[in-house]
Amino acid sequence: MQRIENINAATMNDDKGYGLIQNATVIISKGKIEFVGAAFDAPATPTAEVIDGNGGLLTPGLIDCHTHLVWAGSRANEFAQRLHGASYQQIAEQGGGIKSTVKATREASQETLLELALNRAEALMSQGVTSIEVKSGYGLDLENERKQLTVARQLAEQLPVNIRTTLLAAHAVPPEFSENGNNNADGYIDEIIRTILPTLTNEGLVDAVDAFCESIGFSPAQTEKMFKAAKELGLPIKLHAEQITNQHGAKLAAGYQALSADHLEQLDEEGVMAMAESGTVAVLLPGAFYFLRDTQKPPIELLRKHGVPMAIATDANPGSSPIHNLPLMLQMAATFFHMTPEECLRGVTRNAAKALGETKRGVIAKGCYADLALWQCQDAAELTYQFGVNPLKTLWFNGVAHDRVSKPWSAR
Amino acid sequence: MQRIENINAATMNDDKGYGLIQNATVIISKGKIEFVGAAFDAPATPTAEVIDGNGGLLTPGLIDCHTHLVWAGSRANEFAQRLHGASYQQIAEQGGGIKSTVKATREASQETLLELALNRAEALMSQGVTSIEVKSGYGLDLENERKQLTVARQLAEQLPVNIRTTLLAAHAVPPEFSENGNNNADGYIDEIIRTILPTLTNEGLVDAVDAFCESIGFSPAQTEKMFKAAKELGLPIKLHAEQITNQHGAKLAAGYQALSADHLEQLDEEGVMAMAESGTVAVLLPGAFYFLRDTQKPPIELLRKHGVPMAIATDANPGSSPIHNLPLMLQMAATFFHMTPEECLRGVTRNAAKALGETKRGVIAKGCYADLALWQCQDAAELTYQFGVNPLKTLWFNGVAHDRVSKPWSAR
Repeated sequence: MQRIENINAATMNDDKGYGLIQNATVIISKGKIEFVGAAFDAPATPTAEVIDGNGGLLTPGLIDCHTHLVWAGSRANEFAQRLHGASYQQIAEQGGGIKSTVKATREASQETLLELALNRAEALMSQGVTSIEVKSGYGLDLENERKQLTVARQLAEQLPVNIRTTLLAAHAVPPEFSENGNNNADGYIDEIIRTILPTLTNEGLVDAVDAFCESIGFSPAQTEKMFKAAKELGLPIKLHAEQITNQHGAKLAAGYQALSADHLEQLDEEGVMAMAESGTVAVLLPGAFYFLRDTQKPPIELLRKHGVPMAIATDANPGSSPIHNLPLMLQMAATFFHMTPEECLRGVTRNAAKALGETKRGVIAKGCYADLALWQCQDAAELTYQFGVNPLKTLWFNGVAHDRVSKPWSAR
Repeated sequence: MQRIENINAATMNDDKGYGLIQNATVIISKGKIEFVGAAFDAPATPTAEVIDGNGGLLTPGLIDCHTHLVWAGSRANEFAQRLHGASYQQIAEQGGGIKSTVKATREASQETLLELALNRAEALMSQGVTSIEVKSGYGLDLENERKQLTVARQLAEQLPVNIRTTLLAAHAVPPEFSENGNNNADGYIDEIIRTILPTLTNEGLVDAVDAFCESIGFSPAQTEKMFKAAKELGLPIKLHAEQITNQHGAKLAAGYQALSADHLEQLDEEGVMAMAESGTVAVLLPGAFYFLRDTQKPPIELLRKHGVPMAIATDANPGSSPIHNLPLMLQMAATFFHMTPEECLRGVTRNAAKALGETKRGVIAKGCYADLALWQCQDAAELTYQFGVNPLKTLWFNGVAHDRVSKPWSAR
């Protein structure tokens, strides 16, 4: 049993603000929150280990609810080529873009993929992240989608972090289904539904199903086939929707009670209303917005007006958001999308948990998992406002505390 | 004596590219570079400590050539207020903006300021930074400008990092000179020239002199008075120029052989040509551009056309760039300003050194200080392309190596 004292707690257990409790006490027992409240209300715990928070801020551990963390290869060279004037088409003709990541990921051993993904997950954890969603989608066949999702599961075995896997086989049409310039997307969707999805679900590798519904991805009809197959297997769905064009994917996803629709720059009010109706979370990805130099912002005002919960994630991926940093996403959501610091922090805690179907995470409340982050700051807005000096002091995963080392180097 | 082997070296000793040497060897002796070249050309060093670079990339240590690192207080609350709809004017009327930072910095003890600045400097160092420029400008009187610059000097005593100080007393008009709404900027400039500048120069606290030449800052005439006073004391000058309006400050600064003109969003070709003529470095600050939601980019094409060296810095400060992260500035310079990865890396090494008048830093070349960074990456473009996973392995300050700890936390 642990007793965290001398803290302010942003419980996030509040629809509007931080759910702030000044001078709070939090008691952890068997990996879960046993008590959270004002210090003067806290029960006696004579045998608990007492942790002095030094007046810091305790929040739920952060949740990165949209990542593509498992991949190999490097797109740095393409990035440089583009900055030297090459077009996307020239790069695609050289086998660049997502094709190059699929090739490198297929060629990489599971061990190599794991090592790469461990580095990325640990980077997120060092910023206060205790839960990460990990999508497949660079394998695009049974063997390689399995490899990606197996690595995702291994992350949870080798690190204390909580991992949720999402099958995103419908990320792009693989080379086997796009020979001679003929994109047989229907054939590939059938292959996913017939083989990849049921097999990997049966192997316990799939927590949710996602697709890339876009003019350059899969059509709404193809996406709906995926949704039906997922529902038959009892799996929750998510969707990459309305990033480049309005395919009305969010509305389609809402009709299947999607956990989330993600990106949403082109979302219209009808889609917003459908999401509000189904309780689907809007996952906003300011890193991709930034990196792609997008100018069309997601409809924040409409999402607020209709009460759609908004989450924020890194979208960490080599093509459109090579950014493994969740705190930066808070600052970018405020700066680019004009989201308030309260919305930003809710977006990586309470609402991010909801986007993953996690009912016992994302808030500091009795009975929830003790995934907690202690920050050396007084004002919760600091977490959105400043960037670069890491204020994280201690991180709890299921009640197990890890102190961040303040001087992370050693003289030789 | 140290011998770094099994590396690729981006020496930056090249006007165009990275000055890359594949399979290089670098020999360090007495804190300086003794040899840099292809491994097969390296002389024998039987007694040297051999460091295996594991195929990584060695670059000059990064240089952050424009920061306001020493300040107290928090502007997080103002940031939150603005996102909740308050105007800049409302915040200013409540004593917010730079006034609040000046007040908090004046009220803070030297010890408090040092502790805050140490955290910020260490954050930069953990990203590969070996030299930091630190400006005053939140004291705005003799005692408090001295306090800021003394803290800057203390950073260099307590950390291995190289610090260059810049007196920016002409940052804003202090309350003593702006009573009853009358901004007596001339009176304050006279006070700086008569007292603050000569006294602090005499105390060895001033390496360069800077001013904020702007419609809301100091006029070109006031700025020129500062330049003349600086030149009489033999001090090099820098200038905050052309950020919000075109005051032709860069041209003025170039006429005084300024080391750098900084910001430059509104710079015209005449100013660019004057900078080219005088060898003045253009210090670009993508963090402020981003945080202020600016849309007017600095004239990169003109700077390229006339061969003005471009540097990149954090501008770390509580008002317009609360960002203590130099690698992020590389990615932002590429993303917002379309600078190439070569330009970005040159901007935080060779050209940043030039912006500080450092003749023996910023490149890996014989006789230079052995300020070096070893990165776990193969392609130098990675340093600009990806963000969040820190590839830094080892950092040398004057030849003293510090290894970054890869797991920067400990279980309780």
